[in-house]
Amino acid sequence: MAIRYVAFDGDDTLWHNETRFHLTQTALRDLLRRHVPDADVDTHLSEVEMRNLGLYGYGVKAFTLSMLETAIQVTEGRVPTADLEVILGWGKKMLAAPTELLEGVEEALRAVSSQHELLLITKGDLFDQESKLARSGLAEMFSGVEILSEKNVDAYRAVLRRRHIEPEEFVMVGNSLRSDVVPVVEIGGRAVHIPYVMTWHLEHVDDAALPRGGWYRLGAIAELRPLLDSLDQSAAFGV
Amino acid sequence: MAIRYVAFDGDDTLWHNETRFHLTQTALRDLLRRHVPDADVDTHLSEVEMRNLGLYGYGVKAFTLSMLETAIQVTEGRVPTADLEVILGWGKKMLAAPTELLEGVEEALRAVSSQHELLLITKGDLFDQESKLARSGLAEMFSGVEILSEKNVDAYRAVLRRRHIEPEEFVMVGNSLRSDVVPVVEIGGRAVHIPYVMTWHLEHVDDAALPRGGWYRLGAIAELRPLLDSLDQSAAFGV
Repeated sequence: MAIRYVAFDGDDTLWHNETRFHLTQTALRDLLRRHVPDADVDTHLSEVEMRNLGLYGYGVKAFTLSMLETAIQVTEGRVPTADLEVILGWGKKMLAAPTELLEGVEEALRAVSSQHELLLITKGDLFDQESKLARSGLAEMFSGVEILSEKNVDAYRAVLRRRHIEPEEFVMVGNSLRSDVVPVVEIGGRAVHIPYVMTWHLEHVDDAALPRGGWYRLGAIAELRPLLDSLDQSAAFGV
Repeated sequence: MAIRYVAFDGDDTLWHNETRFHLTQTALRDLLRRHVPDADVDTHLSEVEMRNLGLYGYGVKAFTLSMLETAIQVTEGRVPTADLEVILGWGKKMLAAPTELLEGVEEALRAVSSQHELLLITKGDLFDQESKLARSGLAEMFSGVEILSEKNVDAYRAVLRRRHIEPEEFVMVGNSLRSDVVPVVEIGGRAVHIPYVMTWHLEHVDDAALPRGGWYRLGAIAELRPLLDSLDQSAAFGV
């Protein structure tokens, strides 16, 4: 079946995201080591984040709250409130930061949009994601936007049903195997994996859990339109 | 035109919300007055919330971050970190609290759903709202759920367009004049206002800004089905 809808993930697929978390986390490590020189800040933060995920969900506000909790716990309460104010300020800076597009994104979207309908399917904090999209300058290229609290099989099924899209005519493009590839292939769609320079540990997938077919890996988004063209040609020739 | 879609706001229309914010705010006042006896905590918090609204949006996580900022500022940094941990804990408690339905909600929804399609149109934090809906036991009564970052004219227009709903066949039910009544009437829909016992100051609307027609006020959700019936009868008789 010909591809009609090409959906894109936002964070670390269209615009940089993990980098700003990574930089902030480095600053947190430096800040807390001034009080507890041998503290394992990364491990502690990641445990706090994991524990809070079911209550907070994803996003910068959740991350800021978990950073504050980590700072208090790691220093056993000795962190000065001035430092906690600094951490609050980091969260605001992350939220206000300009949306920095990955290389080649605009051209690639334009190339794909001449043949297919574009959707944005992203997860995380509703307010922050809408704000990032608005500031990206890409908003009018998408015929639909879905911001989900979790990108799993049920969520994708609901989106496709709501939009009257058949899985066979749907391709998802993203940097996360767990969120953009595995569930999409499971419901009969196809996926294109474009890895980002870094992956959040909660997005990790074991190789054994990867589907054997139905997905493709590209080194850069510029290669997307040629791939889609070749998939559509194979379909036309019944390959 | 006959009413086909009846959409409900969630917070303070179907389930209690402002109350849990109010109780937490009272606790914050008591906590900070131990350090600064004459502090005007409410005014300070409301200024911080207003200033952060454009970055944080609505919801418990935003509220928690603003409480922490207020606590540090009001005490000029003298608040002990143990108290900040208490505030972090309040946020989690609010997020984990059971969804407490308002009186008569379940019966009213059932009565209305026998004649109309029900939608939930709510604003706030995506993750928290989905979680509250899931715990409400009401989820399967709605044919559609929309969680918006802001309920204004553009947002309602987009929802109706996406769902192929004519404004004339759409009624919005909610406790907020600003979010549930004014924008809906402006786009040609009808609205039913059911006031809650308290209103957040950011939801206040001046009387002069209220539309002159197209909306109704009820004292309780139990009166909704009779109102809708009478509106449909008027339509049938061309009144």
